[in-house]
Amino acid sequence: MPELRKDPVLGRWIIISKERQKRPTDFLVEQSQVSGGFCPLCPGNESFTPPEVYTFSYKAKANNGSEWQVRVVPNKYPALVIEGDLGKEGLGLYDRMNGIGAHEVIVESPNHDENFADLPAERMALVFKAYQERIIDLEKDDRFKYVMVFKNHGRAAGASLEHSHSQLIALPILPRMIVSELAGAESHYKYKERCIFCDIIRQEMQEKERVVCQNEKFITITPFAPRTPFEMWILPKQHSSAYFSQNEADLLALARIFSESLQRLSRCIADVPYNFVLHTEPLHSGGLKYYHWHFEIVPKLTSIAGFEWGTGFYINPLPPEEAAEYLRDAMEHTSEGVIDEKIIAG
Amino acid sequence: MPELRKDPVLGRWIIISKERQKRPTDFLVEQSQVSGGFCPLCPGNESFTPPEVYTFSYKAKANNGSEWQVRVVPNKYPALVIEGDLGKEGLGLYDRMNGIGAHEVIVESPNHDENFADLPAERMALVFKAYQERIIDLEKDDRFKYVMVFKNHGRAAGASLEHSHSQLIALPILPRMIVSELAGAESHYKYKERCIFCDIIRQEMQEKERVVCQNEKFITITPFAPRTPFEMWILPKQHSSAYFSQNEADLLALARIFSESLQRLSRCIADVPYNFVLHTEPLHSGGLKYYHWHFEIVPKLTSIAGFEWGTGFYINPLPPEEAAEYLRDAMEHTSEGVIDEKIIAG
Repeated sequence: MPELRKDPVLGRWIIISKERQKRPTDFLVEQSQVSGGFCPLCPGNESFTPPEVYTFSYKAKANNGSEWQVRVVPNKYPALVIEGDLGKEGLGLYDRMNGIGAHEVIVESPNHDENFADLPAERMALVFKAYQERIIDLEKDDRFKYVMVFKNHGRAAGASLEHSHSQLIALPILPRMIVSELAGAESHYKYKERCIFCDIIRQEMQEKERVVCQNEKFITITPFAPRTPFEMWILPKQHSSAYFSQNEADLLALARIFSESLQRLSRCIADVPYNFVLHTEPLHSGGLKYYHWHFEIVPKLTSIAGFEWGTGFYINPLPPEEAAEYLRDAMEHTSEGVIDEKIIAG
Repeated sequence: MPELRKDPVLGRWIIISKERQKRPTDFLVEQSQVSGGFCPLCPGNESFTPPEVYTFSYKAKANNGSEWQVRVVPNKYPALVIEGDLGKEGLGLYDRMNGIGAHEVIVESPNHDENFADLPAERMALVFKAYQERIIDLEKDDRFKYVMVFKNHGRAAGASLEHSHSQLIALPILPRMIVSELAGAESHYKYKERCIFCDIIRQEMQEKERVVCQNEKFITITPFAPRTPFEMWILPKQHSSAYFSQNEADLLALARIFSESLQRLSRCIADVPYNFVLHTEPLHSGGLKYYHWHFEIVPKLTSIAGFEWGTGFYINPLPPEEAAEYLRDAMEHTSEGVIDEKIIAG
């Protein structure tokens, strides 16, 4: 059984999950299936994954015979397990609980070689819909406090399977990142009675220099204090604290701007590994005035990552104003008209 | 001029430092001098670094003709610069200041091929002495609030030069890691009137299962909630909040346990890249009852690092109790008697 443990000083929770490597020397071996061979996420191989918890299918079959477009399955090597009691206990100074949770894989496409960034907006919206459906379903379980949705794209960013997928982890605790964000946002609200993210959006739309692109519902910015070059945040322009409350038109608009943002990124740096993480309010919050859901996209640039590892202190060689300019210009210096001009214009 | 910027939600400061790469495509290129060729840190090449700010020399020259054992120089490509005013300003919601600070390189040995872990304790103590002297000197500058001392060993951990060295950064702000640690420790003190780290040491010495080794003055443990396999903390057994207050006998005892801890680590995983970071009280604190200085050593295991990047949530496949057992056993299953038996026994 995996275990959740809390650092008594920082309040940071970590997962101890033993079912992976065992001997010390195993830790340096990349346990990667990135290249070649059998793919358990491809259509036809459904029996090699645990039974699905969500599927989206069109009425007609897809080109390659797949009956599904998006498929969500429990992770075969889960960091947390769904069955059991939390078993919270104190051990002297320390706090632990059983590693209860859900760890799921969202297969984003039936096509093995299709990149998430290249999905047509209508199909990317199905992936975003799948995130919603899973959050709504997992919220029914009272043991869970948060669902963290994230994607690792590229080996350097931690992807262990080539077939495009994202992951979610339902947690019985709040991750530290969210605790800190909620605290900062709430403190701003108490003082100003305004959502800090709404304030950020207002200021960014006025100043324009960190705006990458926008459409009627969403805006992509390079944040004022980015951890890495080309870090991007995608936020809904209207105040909304819960990702799952978006309707289908919202999700389509989200897919359009997400796709455009990733396309712009890949034209600045081809094949860049990246992570994105959905930041949304905790489960059972019922709508917060001071919080604002958004996605954070963080490129993984190996020449830079060394410094902050261990120190937790980021040095970024590229000002976000310049990154935004590169990203804005990315679509103009190319002959490939992948993106609809109307979307660029917003 | 580099810039310090604060994330308005999290309060996290980052450095924007432009003097490195420029064009987007440059970001994927490792700017590394790890292998071969000219080394600016070797004796005889002193004129290729900025003038030294600290040197320790024996009276007699070393074997290779070097007149110094440890040498501290400003970083030639500093993330922060020493000259100028802080120029703090608000930009709407945002806060920034000029990137004023010191960024120095501590050359740990005159010998190009000598690993930090292999330094005899007497010479490693000279490195720890150099950290102290630099902290004491930099504290005189009222602009600085913190000196962060850290080491990246191995390319995967961010080292860009092969010659063994550590770094320090003097900052006009408190890094978030320290702010969080101080807050957690202070809250424990307010409730219990005891230092939380002293409590941790007491519990660990009683339970023994996470103790790696100890001597009369220091203890090395694998923390209860470690981020990575084989994460280790080295703490003074007596309460002390400021690293610079240690005397020379303390530093020698620190060097002995540090050396032993790294030797044990390298026998569990040969050539493992790692970082260590000194955690000490902020400058001008004058001694805190609730804080306790220590070193954190974090191995960089690439097969595991992917997950938490972006999510800030760590999954560790190795319980610290097992890691401590591997580390304790490491010295017994070898015929190389590198470490003095008396040190192992404590």
